[in-house]
Amino acid sequence: MSEISILSPATVANVVCGFDCLGFALSAPCDEMTVRIIEKKTVRIVNRDQFNLPTEPEKNVAGAALLSMLKAIDENFGFEVEITKHIKPGSGIGSSAASAAGAVVAANELLDERFSKLELIEFAMDGEKVASDDRHADNVAPCIFGGFTLVRSLAPLDVVTLNFPPLFVTVIHPQIEIKTSEARRMLPLQVSLKDAIRQWSNVGALVSGLQKGNYELISRSLEDFIVETVRKSLIPKFDAIKNKSLKAGALGGGISGSGPSVFMLSETSVTARKVENVMREIYSETAIDFNIYVTKINAEGIKILEK
Amino acid sequence: MSEISILSPATVANVVCGFDCLGFALSAPCDEMTVRIIEKKTVRIVNRDQFNLPTEPEKNVAGAALLSMLKAIDENFGFEVEITKHIKPGSGIGSSAASAAGAVVAANELLDERFSKLELIEFAMDGEKVASDDRHADNVAPCIFGGFTLVRSLAPLDVVTLNFPPLFVTVIHPQIEIKTSEARRMLPLQVSLKDAIRQWSNVGALVSGLQKGNYELISRSLEDFIVETVRKSLIPKFDAIKNKSLKAGALGGGISGSGPSVFMLSETSVTARKVENVMREIYSETAIDFNIYVTKINAEGIKILEK
Repeated sequence: MSEISILSPATVANVVCGFDCLGFALSAPCDEMTVRIIEKKTVRIVNRDQFNLPTEPEKNVAGAALLSMLKAIDENFGFEVEITKHIKPGSGIGSSAASAAGAVVAANELLDERFSKLELIEFAMDGEKVASDDRHADNVAPCIFGGFTLVRSLAPLDVVTLNFPPLFVTVIHPQIEIKTSEARRMLPLQVSLKDAIRQWSNVGALVSGLQKGNYELISRSLEDFIVETVRKSLIPKFDAIKNKSLKAGALGGGISGSGPSVFMLSETSVTARKVENVMREIYSETAIDFNIYVTKINAEGIKILEK
Repeated sequence: MSEISILSPATVANVVCGFDCLGFALSAPCDEMTVRIIEKKTVRIVNRDQFNLPTEPEKNVAGAALLSMLKAIDENFGFEVEITKHIKPGSGIGSSAASAAGAVVAANELLDERFSKLELIEFAMDGEKVASDDRHADNVAPCIFGGFTLVRSLAPLDVVTLNFPPLFVTVIHPQIEIKTSEARRMLPLQVSLKDAIRQWSNVGALVSGLQKGNYELISRSLEDFIVETVRKSLIPKFDAIKNKSLKAGALGGGISGSGPSVFMLSETSVTARKVENVMREIYSETAIDFNIYVTKINAEGIKILEK
């Protein structure tokens, strides 16, 4: 087997009440990646897009993830990875996670699945660290497992896959920059016990709603009293998008990751399209460029295209 | 229909990580209650046990719950309730909830189920308020619905019933007094965001583990970094009970409600009996009297005995 090509999907982390633990994979957009084994124990990055991402492997999220994997391999070989990104860096829908997770999943296929999914997440988190200086799994976990995931713990790594009913997703990516580090700094170090209780009641109810396929319960549970209140100021028109999307029939939604993308979940594709119109109308009145994706939850995660 | 007799079960609230939202019903112990309609629009309490609980209806949890129900009834009649408590007041396994919930469920049977379960919980919470000065549903919800419940919100009242696998429960009730108000005062008003995230990750994982019947996940999720750490000092030998119960094979457990009872969950009745032995051994070395119950989760809730 000489090379593997894959599609690595965008992901939504946090999911309103589930800050720092919940995430899901999207069917689109996806990055295209091809990984091949090379003779030298090193990682070679070939960028096939317009984003001018670093090609030094230790400064590139896919490269850093593959270097982490190579450390766990005794034999003397390396990887070349060719990347065509369709998920814009900085969009808040897991662009770096798609690169990091995609690279190690493809490499693992070349090695006849030598590593478990949890081990792949560990390698991919070393890639994530390059992008955000934070080893987190909220995006790489759903990217690798597909569907809806809950990261219960990082050390030891404990990832729970959740059942979920069909869900359509509308995502708007306003082309503004939000630094993850800045979004992190906005967070309170302390929260009131009362708000924390509301939050974990909602997380429990959301997980139950997802597993039962109870759309009304999912909708009622998509509340966040801790993070959204402080971070929404970074996203122009956030309240208008949220309120009008709910009026258009969305179940709920909020900031994707640390933004600037905003996602809304809907029970049907018809509603997801109505939400798209709402978002388009609101952002057309601003001077901000934007992309909108109408897609669904991707149960499969990273897709192996050809061996 | 002249009278209804019921069995109203003990309940465990909080359930480690699920402080102020999770609860489950026990198969034993249960209070016995008989409710009959009387001509006068009032509530009459007849205590058939040794606990000397108040007989003025507004000072009695069952009485206060029935008075709340009577306010929602136009017709001119009242209730007499005969109570034989087997759940000791102050034990921390929902003694007041059993009285309050049992009274209104029995009365509702006499009225051909005029009220919904959520309405019954509202009435029962007015009874709970007499006992703890706090209108909470953590115990009355599982008492009335049976099984495992999550109270997502009190206003509006939103109760989620959770699927769960067979679970055996060992409960030790050390005969010491813990005032709910004192246990409340110990709680921090603020918690670190980091601890709050760990807690809601565990709540989500526990709900998923319960719904999937994944005992290992249930076990890993039964962690609490916020409440147990401060309240366990109220319960002699708490750490010894917890650690040795886990060694004996328990999945996990902690303080029941605000204590003093401590519960442990097990996958089999054999393990639940081993946990009983552990608890008995530890408490036999103290001067504190105690009861131990070995039982299972009660899927049915309050049981109607005869009409």
